[in-house]
Amino acid sequence: MRSIRPSVSRRIPESTVRRLSHYLRSLEELAREEGLTVSSEELAKRGQTTAAQVRKDLSHFGSFGKRGLGYQVDGLGRRLRQILGVDRTWRIALIGAGRIGSALFAYPDFQSRGYDCVAVFDADPEKIGLRWGDVIIQSSDAIEETVRAEAVELVILAVPASAAQDLAERSVAAGAKGILNFAPIRLRLPKDVHVEDVSLVMELEALSFAITQSGGVPE
Amino acid sequence: MRSIRPSVSRRIPESTVRRLSHYLRSLEELAREEGLTVSSEELAKRGQTTAAQVRKDLSHFGSFGKRGLGYQVDGLGRRLRQILGVDRTWRIALIGAGRIGSALFAYPDFQSRGYDCVAVFDADPEKIGLRWGDVIIQSSDAIEETVRAEAVELVILAVPASAAQDLAERSVAAGAKGILNFAPIRLRLPKDVHVEDVSLVMELEALSFAITQSGGVPE
Repeated sequence: MRSIRPSVSRRIPESTVRRLSHYLRSLEELAREEGLTVSSEELAKRGQTTAAQVRKDLSHFGSFGKRGLGYQVDGLGRRLRQILGVDRTWRIALIGAGRIGSALFAYPDFQSRGYDCVAVFDADPEKIGLRWGDVIIQSSDAIEETVRAEAVELVILAVPASAAQDLAERSVAAGAKGILNFAPIRLRLPKDVHVEDVSLVMELEALSFAITQSGGVPE
Repeated sequence: MRSIRPSVSRRIPESTVRRLSHYLRSLEELAREEGLTVSSEELAKRGQTTAAQVRKDLSHFGSFGKRGLGYQVDGLGRRLRQILGVDRTWRIALIGAGRIGSALFAYPDFQSRGYDCVAVFDADPEKIGLRWGDVIIQSSDAIEETVRAEAVELVILAVPASAAQDLAERSVAAGAKGILNFAPIRLRLPKDVHVEDVSLVMELEALSFAITQSGGVPE
């Protein structure tokens, strides 16, 4: 039986979600290496955070573990996979078969983590028709038809900024529910579409910000 | 004259820093397109946030704009570049000349944003000695010497998880102050070293989390 809860994702900080991913990685390592339970202190050490933060992060999702006994490694791992939505396979499409796109496509962890890339699109006639693994690169003109026919849920958008908004809208109109956006623009999409922006320049800016601020700023 | 303030970066949420990057992009577009001032409402619209959030984000760094007059586009842009530390050039090194590394190296915005890649390292004898742009790929054995000699400040780490911790430690020992980490591990480094993790699987997990949670979760 499933019951529907109102969206909890709105009130969960993004940093918490990142840490849940880290905890899951740690639990998977522990499951290989060691015993049956793990303390919040041990999860904290592996995740470069504090035991209090671990307990707070997990408390958003219910009650785990027993005082003094720690968490069951396999049980907590299973629950985190449910929470993160990775206890199932996601059908994804890659739009953009350039350098970033090809690096992503070859990324070994995608498949093993349940992200199944069922289609690749590009606008370049020289790329259309090429075979990547089990997939043949299609023209971007086929996005609507293929996203619908293949029941694609997530789209990785690795195209220039000028093309991104249009391609995102067409993916969403055909049924995509989430977009991992590598284009350096802020996409404008309906509120029920989830977008994660990956901007390499923004990541570097976050670093240069941290170094600049911690070293003192000009007044 | 410079005065040193205690670190403010600790109390600035990461999401704020991301929005500052977005505001800077918007201001740069505006400077090309339009007039001299911009309202918090306009910045909010372009950054997919609220005017109150814009004002709150900026208030961390002092007082900007005048009630009813908005912000000076060029003045606020200049200040945001200072805050983000991008009013100067950063010397960066790329460790790992694989698919991700080569995609990053070719990324057109790096150079234009003041990130100057002065060295590339790889462990593969077939890659060592190849020329990429103005840079010749060096053996990872040369990291200490080159990072020191070239005064590298930021390192982009695009290597397998098994090699990342060692290479990060050696970069830091030679003077690197920040690391953009693409390896799927949590680096353990001195507290004064800034690390930004970019995990493509974690980005996808953040998406599948959001979709799963907003669609209702099994109880």
